[in-house]
Amino acid sequence: MKDLIWKKEGKGESTSAAIMAFLAGEDIELDKELLLFDIQASAAHVNGLRQINILSDEEATSLLGGLERIESDFCAGTKVLDSRYEDGHSAIESWLTEMLGDVGGKIHTGRSRNDQVAVALRLYMRDRLRKLQQCCTDIATLLLERVKTEADLPLSGYTHLQAAMPSSAGLWLTGHAEAFIDNAELAMLTTKWLDASPLGTASGFGVNLDLPRYEVANELGFSRLVVNPQYAQNARGKIELQALSVLSACTLDLRRLAWDFSLFTTREFGFVKLPEQFCTGSSIMPNKNNPDTVELLRAVHAVVQGAQTELAAVLSLPSGYQRDLQATKPPLIRAFDKGLQALLVLTELLGGFSWCKERMQASITPEMLATDRAQDLARTGVPFRKAYKKAAAQVQETGVDGIAASLENRVSVGGCGRLETGMLQARLNDLKN
Amino acid sequence: MKDLIWKKEGKGESTSAAIMAFLAGEDIELDKELLLFDIQASAAHVNGLRQINILSDEEATSLLGGLERIESDFCAGTKVLDSRYEDGHSAIESWLTEMLGDVGGKIHTGRSRNDQVAVALRLYMRDRLRKLQQCCTDIATLLLERVKTEADLPLSGYTHLQAAMPSSAGLWLTGHAEAFIDNAELAMLTTKWLDASPLGTASGFGVNLDLPRYEVANELGFSRLVVNPQYAQNARGKIELQALSVLSACTLDLRRLAWDFSLFTTREFGFVKLPEQFCTGSSIMPNKNNPDTVELLRAVHAVVQGAQTELAAVLSLPSGYQRDLQATKPPLIRAFDKGLQALLVLTELLGGFSWCKERMQASITPEMLATDRAQDLARTGVPFRKAYKKAAAQVQETGVDGIAASLENRVSVGGCGRLETGMLQARLNDLKN
Amino acid sequence: MKDLIWKKEGKGESTSAAIMAFLAGEDIELDKELLLFDIQASAAHVNGLRQINILSDEEATSLLGGLERIESDFCAGTKVLDSRYEDGHSAIESWLTEMLGDVGGKIHTGRSRNDQVAVALRLYMRDRLRKLQQCCTDIATLLLERVKTEADLPLSGYTHLQAAMPSSAGLWLTGHAEAFIDNAELAMLTTKWLDASPLGTASGFGVNLDLPRYEVANELGFSRLVVNPQYAQNARGKIELQALSVLSACTLDLRRLAWDFSLFTTREFGFVKLPEQFCTGSSIMPNKNNPDTVELLRAVHAVVQGAQTELAAVLSLPSGYQRDLQATKPPLIRAFDKGLQALLVLTELLGGFSWCKERMQASITPEMLATDRAQDLARTGVPFRKAYKKAAAQVQETGVDGIAASLENRVSVGGCGRLETGMLQARLNDLKN
Amino acid sequence: MKDLIWKKEGKGESTSAAIMAFLAGEDIELDKELLLFDIQASAAHVNGLRQINILSDEEATSLLGGLERIESDFCAGTKVLDSRYEDGHSAIESWLTEMLGDVGGKIHTGRSRNDQVAVALRLYMRDRLRKLQQCCTDIATLLLERVKTEADLPLSGYTHLQAAMPSSAGLWLTGHAEAFIDNAELAMLTTKWLDASPLGTASGFGVNLDLPRYEVANELGFSRLVVNPQYAQNARGKIELQALSVLSACTLDLRRLAWDFSLFTTREFGFVKLPEQFCTGSSIMPNKNNPDTVELLRAVHAVVQGAQTELAAVLSLPSGYQRDLQATKPPLIRAFDKGLQALLVLTELLGGFSWCKERMQASITPEMLATDRAQDLARTGVPFRKAYKKAAAQVQETGVDGIAASLENRVSVGGCGRLETGMLQARLNDLKN
Repeated sequence: MKDLIWKKEGKGESTSAAIMAFLAGEDIELDKELLLFDIQASAAHVNGLRQINILSDEEATSLLGGLERIESDFCAGTKVLDSRYEDGHSAIESWLTEMLGDVGGKIHTGRSRNDQVAVALRLYMRDRLRKLQQCCTDIATLLLERVKTEADLPLSGYTHLQAAMPSSAGLWLTGHAEAFIDNAELAMLTTKWLDASPLGTASGFGVNLDLPRYEVANELGFSRLVVNPQYAQNARGKIELQALSVLSACTLDLRRLAWDFSLFTTREFGFVKLPEQFCTGSSIMPNKNNPDTVELLRAVHAVVQGAQTELAAVLSLPSGYQRDLQATKPPLIRAFDKGLQALLVLTELLGGFSWCKERMQASITPEMLATDRAQDLARTGVPFRKAYKKAAAQVQETGVDGIAASLENRVSVGGCGRLETGMLQARLNDLKN
Repeated sequence: MKDLIWKKEGKGESTSAAIMAFLAGEDIELDKELLLFDIQASAAHVNGLRQINILSDEEATSLLGGLERIESDFCAGTKVLDSRYEDGHSAIESWLTEMLGDVGGKIHTGRSRNDQVAVALRLYMRDRLRKLQQCCTDIATLLLERVKTEADLPLSGYTHLQAAMPSSAGLWLTGHAEAFIDNAELAMLTTKWLDASPLGTASGFGVNLDLPRYEVANELGFSRLVVNPQYAQNARGKIELQALSVLSACTLDLRRLAWDFSLFTTREFGFVKLPEQFCTGSSIMPNKNNPDTVELLRAVHAVVQGAQTELAAVLSLPSGYQRDLQATKPPLIRAFDKGLQALLVLTELLGGFSWCKERMQASITPEMLATDRAQDLARTGVPFRKAYKKAAAQVQETGVDGIAASLENRVSVGGCGRLETGMLQARLNDLKN
Repeated sequence: MKDLIWKKEGKGESTSAAIMAFLAGEDIELDKELLLFDIQASAAHVNGLRQINILSDEEATSLLGGLERIESDFCAGTKVLDSRYEDGHSAIESWLTEMLGDVGGKIHTGRSRNDQVAVALRLYMRDRLRKLQQCCTDIATLLLERVKTEADLPLSGYTHLQAAMPSSAGLWLTGHAEAFIDNAELAMLTTKWLDASPLGTASGFGVNLDLPRYEVANELGFSRLVVNPQYAQNARGKIELQALSVLSACTLDLRRLAWDFSLFTTREFGFVKLPEQFCTGSSIMPNKNNPDTVELLRAVHAVVQGAQTELAAVLSLPSGYQRDLQATKPPLIRAFDKGLQALLVLTELLGGFSWCKERMQASITPEMLATDRAQDLARTGVPFRKAYKKAAAQVQETGVDGIAASLENRVSVGGCGRLETGMLQARLNDLKN
Repeated sequence: MKDLIWKKEGKGESTSAAIMAFLAGEDIELDKELLLFDIQASAAHVNGLRQINILSDEEATSLLGGLERIESDFCAGTKVLDSRYEDGHSAIESWLTEMLGDVGGKIHTGRSRNDQVAVALRLYMRDRLRKLQQCCTDIATLLLERVKTEADLPLSGYTHLQAAMPSSAGLWLTGHAEAFIDNAELAMLTTKWLDASPLGTASGFGVNLDLPRYEVANELGFSRLVVNPQYAQNARGKIELQALSVLSACTLDLRRLAWDFSLFTTREFGFVKLPEQFCTGSSIMPNKNNPDTVELLRAVHAVVQGAQTELAAVLSLPSGYQRDLQATKPPLIRAFDKGLQALLVLTELLGGFSWCKERMQASITPEMLATDRAQDLARTGVPFRKAYKKAAAQVQETGVDGIAASLENRVSVGGCGRLETGMLQARLNDLKN
């Protein structure tokens, strides 16, 4: 039987099990990811109620103790969120009442499940965005570390997947590092943007109590308030979409990296070798050794993009809380779970792959130097467009020695060879928490 | 430790647990929904191998018995798909070998996990689309049943959410019934379209065995073959998107219905009353009784739309199997699970709601008859555009008696009142399985 | 100044220009694609009104003549849909009244712009789906034509982008042919599904006239009616999404083909050469010749997927016409314009590319025959799983001569070499209009 | 005939008109929105080339003059981007060469169209995000202005679309104001994030010239560089998606506002009246006056969401420029055009609507005060859960006088009535440019 906190006396017929299963759905499962944040916010709320004398010191101490016990029991698995409870928010009150009696029924003074979930979700997103920022700086750090020893390995540069100009492992590594530095900054800015406390706005219309919202927000580490109660509800989904947008920037970059690995590990390109543990075999083809990890990493952005679409599709609603909003939780949590897991696997992959130097060296062919030649001519005063045509005509003439000389030139003179790792390192350092 | 069927002798380092967790992910969970279909297809494959004498009668009988036991053990929960297995496809071979020894190793002759999953997914989708068709005809049946007694209840018709013309419960019920009849037909046509067997195409290049593909397809109830082995793989995701497209038509209609209920149950419209079990209360507001079920039904389309986006985002790939395709399974299965569950809840809702006749009657006001008046004038030869202006000028003149007369007129003469339920009933009967 | 057919006498303030610009938006542009269908439906409506004596023969003849003149003037560019008109539907009435006087004001008897746009869109989609079906059968025909001479060209088969098994140009061509045969069938089935006339349902509540809906539908070539007036409106967007779903199946296959071409034209794979006209150069790199056409074809699915999302995002609405529905037109029309154009370019590309036979031949290496070998062993009674391990151990032993023999074997014995073009050809023939 | 800057001597066959039409597509149209930004960046590039002595002072002056003339001719319509040019980037060089001879051919020294488009797009997005920030602060300003006189108008508060608690016009206005303050901040942060210059990275591999990238970036007002040439290309699409994410936050809030207006203008709710110019009539129903503007505003988010999906669907690509990236421009530009236009219309609407005070007052009924009563009881020491049940039992007892008193109480004591407009005003002031 459901333990329904809103159940009124003398009301006979209750919500049927089938309907309840649909209503709670995976929600009770998802609340497991939110429960600790809910407990944290509940403790702050208790302190707030004490401050305005709704709770005596004794009552507050008792409730805080109860919340601590719920937290440890939940982590130990001795308290379980299951279908007995309508949601995690109700479960906290039910458990407190079970443990402490009447005082448990005091915790909900001046609050609604609507602001409980709003504050828990903000805490959750703040936490996940910080983890994401950490992932991004770790990845960038690792890439820049490799640059130290691998910068000068020649690598064919491609546009349109056609061999274009000489490039280098250093250019490739640094490029992906800058991507994740950008991502880390975006995570940091977005955290700052959503770092506001909705607690104390109740069901979207405030309460007739003088709740100490600032102090409570402060205890939870928020830097400001969501001022308006209606906006505390209306912001739901919108905030989540911005958090997902940061994650999506990361998984887009992950997808590009995975595509590079997918191509570079083909027999035909052959620039990269993956350690055994990232590969699997075929059930029918004895000759296969496949880079499955890379392919599943490539597919992760789809989860995030799907989540964005799913979330946005819920939000076509008038102002105020609607139960539809419950449906914003699964895509948010699913995407962060998958995305953060994938970025950790990526970190392992970036630490583990090795370059195939001979294939890389061999991929640089004379005609790829035509652009440098045209620029050389332009430097002497020939209009670039004419230099371009001249270089086009000469494209096949330089031999292998010419390549070596030119490559060195690229590295020393500047252009693609000039890796401004110092600038990136400085930005990265600022973003490490 | 994983039981990897492709593991070669003497290879030391194996895939790490962390990587394996990422690779298998929720896949092993999802395979639970596919396993029975995989077993069914495996049995047909065994019969195929017997027919071309790869298996003796004895061996085939032994394998079929083994498959039966796996099915019953799996259903009973004594065989469990868990992280010991790379996927459901491998597990079947592992279990057979465990139970039957060497002959278990024969089942994979001439097949690949690639065609195992392709056939299991086609069987899964065929099954789910048939269930969906059944849901749709059930819903339409129920709505048309209500029409029999409720056709003539007046109901304000709206365009732009503004009161427009007199309408009726009959028009509303029949309109939603026709939607689900269309959906049932779409499910039927799409089932027909994807009802083709990929089994026997191995990893995308066929095998050098003369597999009796037609007979095997026939045993599985398919009406034709996926002829080309490459297409058997390339069709993955594309087929799934068409199945989801049908589901999406249903959940779009569900969303409209939920919107109607959401409006009609407001204090302000007040046309509909929901039974208690579809509603819940508030944790803070003692006065609330909310139509949560309706709101969560409204949110279900988001899951389907998210799944469509997620699935399509995976498919930017060259020909042939890529591991990315594994990522097409979660959105497909998640959407069908949620969608079918929601349609069953909708069926309960449509059976349980009641109309508030007084509010409905009161919602018809004189100016809503202006259009009928303009048409009446036009029937006498006045150009419609002039009749329109005349009627606009007279808009407020008809009293309540005028309304009653006109409403009756609408019903008897035709127009919106003429419910062609006969035509719909005939189409519906054709679509009942 | 706008010509507003609903403008009432003595109403002073009218809609401002800025608002009108937003309201009409690109809508008046899009109506150009719908106008001829609207004219066609208007003519049928005139015949319907004549049949029930709302119009005299003379009046009907006059209106039909007017409609013809509008059609020819519009095609000649002497009548232009521009910002003077609120939409194409109103323009028709305005032009008729301009040309014919009062009788022009009679055409709107018994109809609404709501059913005008609904019927025009059904006619539009029917037309575009038929064009799409034609495109698909053309592409399949062309591919099967190439099979006749290119079937036996060896081509490396890939899974996970890793060399897997010997394949052939024939397998590749036939695989893509089957994809487009499936697409043609889907277009045909979906056309059948949406081939229903909403004309005569007015603004969603019917009219109090006995419109001969069947006869009118018949004149327009529809095979049945949208029976219910409310559903005629509620089906908007839902129908469009099914039409886009068919288009999406086509552009998904186009994207796979484009990916194949993108890889196959790299220096590293080198299996395909494109005619000059599909390529462009670089503004800076004299050495480049890039397969831009292929890359832009690859991007076309994005337009369709974006359109699907855009369209579905509009549809979270209660029953009945809402002006939001206007926003379903741009994505529908944009996607079909782009998609059909791209499929025509694909047809040129598929007719023009050539194979690089030496590179293809060279891409088949001994270990790729391991699977065939394992099956050979399995045929002799060795359990496949053991045969697999044996073949894995022998993977490097077969020389070049072994390859040639085995390849021939693949072709003659069956498996991937057995191209069931007959079956595909038969299905294709059925789908040619 | 196309003017192709990469055309080589003696190459016969050129790109066909049909292919060119597909390749350029709407691209040449879209480049009209980018051309002025491209000219601005071109001038900075000229100054850069002068600084490193690739251009003499004279040449630079000549080119700068040419660019100015192109700008004024283009704005005057005497130079037109049409199908003679492959794209806007090429057109600039062609026009310069046409006007200035050989020196025109010098402008492309050290740059590629790849970095031209990258820098033009960054300038475009920076500009549009600033416009967006302005729109958001305008909207918030207007809403807070209305609060000054309308704060205390009572308004029914809703959750689940069910009457919940007393609220006020002030709460509603302030809530939407805070939404747009958040949006303005997000626009500001995102502008800062993408405010980096890619110019000088050529086709993704740099050039062998010592381009003064910092000085050029500085001239263009960028606050930092995109350091790595590969990332300058890989960031394409990703940056755009973040810009769209900000826009999407705005249109999501617009959609909620539009939903509120759509409900509030119904006969049934009746809280709001719109000025005539936001409404239109029906072609068939003389009695209608519809809030079309509101409905089309509600549909605008769909355009943005579609654009996000379309853009992300393009980006499944390996590193480096691919022509697919061209397809990221239409959704970006389409969404910003539509979104900014809609926000201006919203501003007009928010300035023009009026409240219907009697209906608002009447919407507050006794049971809506139950929550306040429960809190009052809780303040006296009754556990809230008990107070809740008590209040539930008393729900119907308070008369109209009780309402008036309680409402006043809400306003004076705090809770929803306490509008912290000061805090919002302060944040808003910081965000005004």
